[in-house]
Amino acid sequence: MNKPLNVAARQFRLREYPLNAVNSDTWQMTSDEPTDPLAGQLLVRNRWLSVDPGMRGWITPKRSYMPPVRPGEVMRAFGVAEVVHSNAEGFKPGDVVTGFTGVQTLGLVNAQMVRKVDLRYASAQQYLSGLGMTGYTAYFGLLDVGKPQSGQTVVVSAAAGAVGSVVCQIAKIKGCRVVGIAGGKEKTHYLKETLGLDAVIDYKAGAVGDALQAAAPQGIDVYFDNVGGDILDAVLMQINHHARIVVCGGISQYIDSEQVRGPANYLQLIAQSATMQGFTMRDYMNRVPEAFMALAGWQAKGEVRFREHVLQGIESFPQAFDMLFSGANQGKLLIQLESENA
Amino acid sequence: MNKPLNVAARQFRLREYPLNAVNSDTWQMTSDEPTDPLAGQLLVRNRWLSVDPGMRGWITPKRSYMPPVRPGEVMRAFGVAEVVHSNAEGFKPGDVVTGFTGVQTLGLVNAQMVRKVDLRYASAQQYLSGLGMTGYTAYFGLLDVGKPQSGQTVVVSAAAGAVGSVVCQIAKIKGCRVVGIAGGKEKTHYLKETLGLDAVIDYKAGAVGDALQAAAPQGIDVYFDNVGGDILDAVLMQINHHARIVVCGGISQYIDSEQVRGPANYLQLIAQSATMQGFTMRDYMNRVPEAFMALAGWQAKGEVRFREHVLQGIESFPQAFDMLFSGANQGKLLIQLESENA
Repeated sequence: MNKPLNVAARQFRLREYPLNAVNSDTWQMTSDEPTDPLAGQLLVRNRWLSVDPGMRGWITPKRSYMPPVRPGEVMRAFGVAEVVHSNAEGFKPGDVVTGFTGVQTLGLVNAQMVRKVDLRYASAQQYLSGLGMTGYTAYFGLLDVGKPQSGQTVVVSAAAGAVGSVVCQIAKIKGCRVVGIAGGKEKTHYLKETLGLDAVIDYKAGAVGDALQAAAPQGIDVYFDNVGGDILDAVLMQINHHARIVVCGGISQYIDSEQVRGPANYLQLIAQSATMQGFTMRDYMNRVPEAFMALAGWQAKGEVRFREHVLQGIESFPQAFDMLFSGANQGKLLIQLESENA
Repeated sequence: MNKPLNVAARQFRLREYPLNAVNSDTWQMTSDEPTDPLAGQLLVRNRWLSVDPGMRGWITPKRSYMPPVRPGEVMRAFGVAEVVHSNAEGFKPGDVVTGFTGVQTLGLVNAQMVRKVDLRYASAQQYLSGLGMTGYTAYFGLLDVGKPQSGQTVVVSAAAGAVGSVVCQIAKIKGCRVVGIAGGKEKTHYLKETLGLDAVIDYKAGAVGDALQAAAPQGIDVYFDNVGGDILDAVLMQINHHARIVVCGGISQYIDSEQVRGPANYLQLIAQSATMQGFTMRDYMNRVPEAFMALAGWQAKGEVRFREHVLQGIESFPQAFDMLFSGANQGKLLIQLESENA
């Protein structure tokens, strides 16, 4: 597996912070050959990259849970990569690692930012999707923050997305009535027919508030929010006493960083003694094995399935990024790096 | 104390739901003599009425924690009243009761909506302010929802108000750094000099965000929010990891029910794994004795003080209501019913 370095390295770098939507000025593709790894560094060859809505936050120069990527730096991304050269204890060429490996075919990473994975237990794709951070995010967000009880109604937005679809399936396993919200016939069909949700709402087809009343006649106990905006406001009007709103993302609000709109109906939190709670995986890193075991077990029994949407080659990164915001992807969005790099 | 009924009864009724600010069309003063109490009812003479921001929600025809007052009905209000005639078990003429006694000098109440109080333990005013629902709201909202730890930074908006000033004092007792936000010199002086807060911000004097950075250099762990709007957004940008935002009210958003503005910076909840939680006293009615004992004990030791702003006569009700929203009151707003009614 330890290939020579004579394949040209390529990277996507942040050129400038986007003011509104990401556009052609945002990224810059470069072909810089990596230098030798310094102490604590690894030279890695990426095999798979994960493309996630959270990336929008990493290119916003605003206080957040980690510092933003700076202009000129390689774009941050989760990936699965193979170690080519190691200058860090505990890693050797041929090891497969996952973590922040960056939008690059070949490059240096700090060994502290990755961990070794064993491809006997799961495929590289799965370590980035249902059995990786995506799955863990669904697991802890729903179970620890949302705390659904059997028989309660759980509503999930971006329900056909990478995180949302896993949330829906875990909620079904826990005995909840699950209502998924997604856009378009393909996604709603998938949620209803393949995942077997109790009700599905196509937000492009009509008023979400009316549809929620029909789909959640007993009111909403848990809302797993990936989108914010009008859908969050519609849900707030129908939450039950002591409802829990899990704030996982706000993709409808990521486009225009100057015009973020908060949930106008947030005072329903008072009327219903309800909670809105945010989280990131940094709070749960010590419990990753628990989530991995649970998700792998459910998958083995056929109780959860992970849908992946795979694009080919590092050149597809800007297109992949745009798909997240247009909703064009169907499942977890991954980039497989081209075979000449394998 | 059992006076004859030959004093004309007067009531403020809701004439119509206000679209925006409450105005002269909102209320109607009437002089209807009460009928005899039906089974389960009491005829009571009000001594004190409590005027609270939450009243704005009761005249909004929107889903909330209790049904809105309907046009034509006597306006809902907490009061302390004396029983004149009883047709309910457990109550007799001369008993002093508190609960929803309504904006009326003399009238019928359902016995289930009031409870007896003993004026040997606290004055009638105190049962409506620091030792009543106002104090309990501060107690449970701060301690149960906000969960402040000694040494943490607690920020309170409407800090010179009825609930806010008690929150500030309990947070001091618990060993927190307490930052109060209020409008104008009189209120900020009171908070700094009389209540001894660690820092005070006059939101009318400049940008709250900048002032918060100076007043809360370690970031904000607990925010007790009575106002919403720009102040909530400024706080969100400076919350710490695992911060708790207690949503008690949103007075800046009560005026125009069509144009409520949600917190644009709510996605900071994700970045900081933070919580926004609403509550009302209905969740804590079984724990009222605990709050009463704690507050009465602190008051006896001089560790908390309750400031009351008293208006005279039922005619002052519309003016009192307006004061809440202009911020003109200094402390808990009460109406003492005129002596000819005593």
